[in-house]
Amino acid sequence: MGPVADTGAVSESAEAMRARVRASFERQAMMATLGVELAAVEPGRVELVVGHDDRFTQQHGFLHAGAIAAVLDSACGYAAFSVMPPDAAVLTATYTINLLAPAAGQRFSMTGAVVRAGRTLVVCRGEAFGDGAATPFAIMQATLTALYGRPGISG
Amino acid sequence: MGPVADTGAVSESAEAMRARVRASFERQAMMATLGVELAAVEPGRVELVVGHDDRFTQQHGFLHAGAIAAVLDSACGYAAFSVMPPDAAVLTATYTINLLAPAAGQRFSMTGAVVRAGRTLVVCRGEAFGDGAATPFAIMQATLTALYGRPGISG
Amino acid sequence: MGPVADTGAVSESAEAMRARVRASFERQAMMATLGVELAAVEPGRVELVVGHDDRFTQQHGFLHAGAIAAVLDSACGYAAFSVMPPDAAVLTATYTINLLAPAAGQRFSMTGAVVRAGRTLVVCRGEAFGDGAATPFAIMQATLTALYGRPGISG
Amino acid sequence: MGPVADTGAVSESAEAMRARVRASFERQAMMATLGVELAAVEPGRVELVVGHDDRFTQQHGFLHAGAIAAVLDSACGYAAFSVMPPDAAVLTATYTINLLAPAAGQRFSMTGAVVRAGRTLVVCRGEAFGDGAATPFAIMQATLTALYGRPGISG
Repeated sequence: MGPVADTGAVSESAEAMRARVRASFERQAMMATLGVELAAVEPGRVELVVGHDDRFTQQHGFLHAGAIAAVLDSACGYAAFSVMPPDAAVLTATYTINLLAPAAGQRFSMTGAVVRAGRTLVVCRGEAFGDGAATPFAIMQATLTALYGRPGISG
Repeated sequence: MGPVADTGAVSESAEAMRARVRASFERQAMMATLGVELAAVEPGRVELVVGHDDRFTQQHGFLHAGAIAAVLDSACGYAAFSVMPPDAAVLTATYTINLLAPAAGQRFSMTGAVVRAGRTLVVCRGEAFGDGAATPFAIMQATLTALYGRPGISG
Repeated sequence: MGPVADTGAVSESAEAMRARVRASFERQAMMATLGVELAAVEPGRVELVVGHDDRFTQQHGFLHAGAIAAVLDSACGYAAFSVMPPDAAVLTATYTINLLAPAAGQRFSMTGAVVRAGRTLVVCRGEAFGDGAATPFAIMQATLTALYGRPGISG
Repeated sequence: MGPVADTGAVSESAEAMRARVRASFERQAMMATLGVELAAVEPGRVELVVGHDDRFTQQHGFLHAGAIAAVLDSACGYAAFSVMPPDAAVLTATYTINLLAPAAGQRFSMTGAVVRAGRTLVVCRGEAFGDGAATPFAIMQATLTALYGRPGISG
């Protein structure tokens, strides 16, 4: 389903929005440390890609739920951020993740998509896929919040 | 509230249980990479400790929700594992995390505690505290599942 | 996305499955009390329909979140039940609901769809729509569990 | 843990707060229909009580998860409302419920307690107990939102 943005007229161009998302993404040290790439940014939808990394595994050798959740959370966060006014900062309020199967594979695609966007709350769904699989191995339902006018907090 | 274990008579000693938890914890590369220490293990309750690390921050300089969630998830997972029969493997089925405030501080204590334990499902609550604070900056409600008899999957 | 059932060969016909779902649905007094109808049953997907009822409203006059959640939970539960072996009973382990907008309207369609089905755990997503709207006013992510061989518990 | 209210100086007396909570509670037709009583109201903590009712059961004869969730959600909602400024209206944004055991018993106590309160978001935990049991049969983690200045929406 498409995003529903009730956030008021946003005069920003798609190009400016993408630059804004990318600038914030590049300030997330966690994403660089995990080796995450920003693969696609559309209004209300973001795709991140990450490879298997032995440093971030759980006790059975699969990618740790924490790494999966970190990337899915960022995918949802930037999907929300993409439909927020340019002066808003985005923070995750809460999310629920279901781990459906081990993160088997070498390369994972994680998407976040806006379900409904209000001025202060944006709800997104995330899905994680391994090696081009058609069904996700993890899904997320996330609630993001937009902050306005907090000095030192932007993006 | 105390753990309620309906998992059948577990003849394992507390010492054997702690060794079993520690052995599994030490196989989680993610925990070593994040610099997490296993601070305390009681039946149905685990405390992990982690320091601030610039490599795992979000765009505002605080510890990333993904790092917080990874540690809380492990705290809940090992709390569940501590009350499971010795031949079970533990996997996270789903969790919900609420991020209540930025992860401000240098050293974080994250606890997991069993609320109810059945043979296949164990429900835990997790709490994250910064620098000795009395109120948590993040809380988790997690559902773990016990696996039996899967070759190659233990701990 | 389509359901992925790893529950073993189910020789049951679609007709027998629908009869099994309907028989269980009709034993839920809560559904009758709320006036819920079983509108559609496919393998892995169920649609329930309910009308506005002043007896089940919250303090602002809209359908109470509890009523919405009850119907969405049942839609997810029966979607899961539809792909379970005939001898299983279904119970909700946990769900997360996001209330995106007030339940405005007179007639609500609530769907549950299986995302992944295992032998003991089935994960579903639910969506609630008002008066033919294209975007949901509530979404759910639910984890159901299959019980086998509990005397007195079936369906 | 005690509530942490960052909602600004609230000059309201405890008595005025209780009257405000009770007035809103009495406008929830759903609570009257389910036969719920407001048993206790403290700042940041509310207890609701409900009896077993055959009209609100699931297919195995226990109280339906939807009824349990409706009461727990209201307990959390009024716990949040109790620490909000008098001019705020409270709405549930999202919650996660874990159903730990069947709702066995004749009389259920359901509590909501504030974990952290901000100006627009309040996070609560809920617990449901049957017939004076010491361990809960259901737990909830809820995120409530405060609305200000919406005509027609109060309480």
